[in-house]
Amino acid sequence: MTSFSIHSGQVHHTWDRAIAPVATLAPGDEVTLQLVDAGGGQLTAESTAADLGKLDFGRLNPVTGPLYVEGAEPGDALVVDILDVEVGEWGWTACIPGFGLLADEFPDPHLRISRITGGYADLLPGLRVPVVPMIGTIGVAPPEPGPHSVIPPRRWGGNMDIRHIGPGARLILPVGVGGALLSAGDTHAAMGDGEVCGTGVETSATVRLRVDVTKGAAPRTPVIETHPVSARTGAALATTGIGPDLMEASRDAVRALIEEITARTGLAPEDAYLLASVAADLKISEVVDAPNWVVSAHLEREVLGAG
Amino acid sequence: MTSFSIHSGQVHHTWDRAIAPVATLAPGDEVTLQLVDAGGGQLTAESTAADLGKLDFGRLNPVTGPLYVEGAEPGDALVVDILDVEVGEWGWTACIPGFGLLADEFPDPHLRISRITGGYADLLPGLRVPVVPMIGTIGVAPPEPGPHSVIPPRRWGGNMDIRHIGPGARLILPVGVGGALLSAGDTHAAMGDGEVCGTGVETSATVRLRVDVTKGAAPRTPVIETHPVSARTGAALATTGIGPDLMEASRDAVRALIEEITARTGLAPEDAYLLASVAADLKISEVVDAPNWVVSAHLEREVLGAG
Repeated sequence: MTSFSIHSGQVHHTWDRAIAPVATLAPGDEVTLQLVDAGGGQLTAESTAADLGKLDFGRLNPVTGPLYVEGAEPGDALVVDILDVEVGEWGWTACIPGFGLLADEFPDPHLRISRITGGYADLLPGLRVPVVPMIGTIGVAPPEPGPHSVIPPRRWGGNMDIRHIGPGARLILPVGVGGALLSAGDTHAAMGDGEVCGTGVETSATVRLRVDVTKGAAPRTPVIETHPVSARTGAALATTGIGPDLMEASRDAVRALIEEITARTGLAPEDAYLLASVAADLKISEVVDAPNWVVSAHLEREVLGAG
Repeated sequence: MTSFSIHSGQVHHTWDRAIAPVATLAPGDEVTLQLVDAGGGQLTAESTAADLGKLDFGRLNPVTGPLYVEGAEPGDALVVDILDVEVGEWGWTACIPGFGLLADEFPDPHLRISRITGGYADLLPGLRVPVVPMIGTIGVAPPEPGPHSVIPPRRWGGNMDIRHIGPGARLILPVGVGGALLSAGDTHAAMGDGEVCGTGVETSATVRLRVDVTKGAAPRTPVIETHPVSARTGAALATTGIGPDLMEASRDAVRALIEEITARTGLAPEDAYLLASVAADLKISEVVDAPNWVVSAHLEREVLGAG
């Protein structure tokens, strides 16, 4: 096992299979990534709402990488264990005009800076938000050539903003190109399911990952095995639906969960459907990374006898 | 304080302000309701999938009541404390043709009977689903005259299928008619957010409620203060969006949450919006009670300093 360290200058701003990897990992290797915040360093702890008007949108949501993983081929699953997410000492949360679930009702820029200390972010005077570190953007290069915006998530992951992708979680991604080309960024000290104003507590972070490859096991969309510490829930199996319609994303997430349940337990699909209905929870993970939203279906693993 | 007891024969099958109340309660009174299951007693613990084809759909989802609450007038809030939900000894879970999120993919009737014992429902051999008792349908009469289907939820509550409406929770409903006319039914021993196949572990129950009235405080849609025991979460403040589009329901739930936060804390709306983004979770409570779905926005009360 080799350990790699990737510094925060090694970023890119689109997904593109032509971007040269910054390192080559073997299955089982660990890597430590220094991730800049989703503002790409354009905001500081002294920034004000006026600075939001000066943001260069082309520099938003940078991702660090890509990492080439030996042996990963299209059709394989890339297994990423999130070993640690150490967030920075401050973070920013903003209402950026034109962005967010209620963009029409909140047209003005608004910014709050949090200090992150003692397990809490002090978003507002007198209010303490528990720190739940997470990686907002993590994914692999799409197989389609050319640059793809880093804002919407896709089958290949990316800006999924699933708050359950934090320390202790395992993320299983489909591989689209040789070597997978894994990148990550957009770390948050806290975020609610939905990320309704468009931002969490946006912060830099040091992230430690371990990568592995399962041959021929690409899931249809990303699958997460959550860890209770990071999840405000127990240890769960979570599947995803990603797309521009919440209803269809809900259906996709449930279809994927039925597939996972049947594959892991041997249950018939109609029984897996009933089990999902009585024990799995549909969460709107993000509804702001236009044009694609993420619905995830979470089933506590203890129900499957694999707590 | 007076205690009332309403037996399971006192049911109705539509919401209608013209239905005569079965009892008159004063604010502060408690009531014990015997609720039949959502099948209206048409299924037994010995039923098979073939019996699903014989269901009289006009007898599904009966609700017990209505209860007239003295002093409740349009524009008031009816406050319902869920003191206890004692579920039955067995329950049923079914895929009913034409019903459910994946109705096209699961066209055949399918039925599973659970024994409910020791805190678990044995939905399938070897699988134990934790019992989380809840009231699927609880609401007040709409002000519009005439009968209204009991299947879709509305601003006035009804078949919301929010699994957080269980023991220890407080439900705050807008009052639409004099006396409110509260009814309840459709109890579940377990259900996941979404209720994706259209049923939970459907069971009869004995439910104990306490009612109160807050003058002039009708919420725009139902609000729930959840209890951790019933919620797979901490004690949270939950608002709802109810309607035929999940995106608009999401927006409505967030708008309502912003209103609740500002009313309870004095925060500015733009700060409440940021707080919702970093700390509140969007859940799809049900996506099967056509044509209206429920999205709920949950904020842990400890964040508001009111744990």
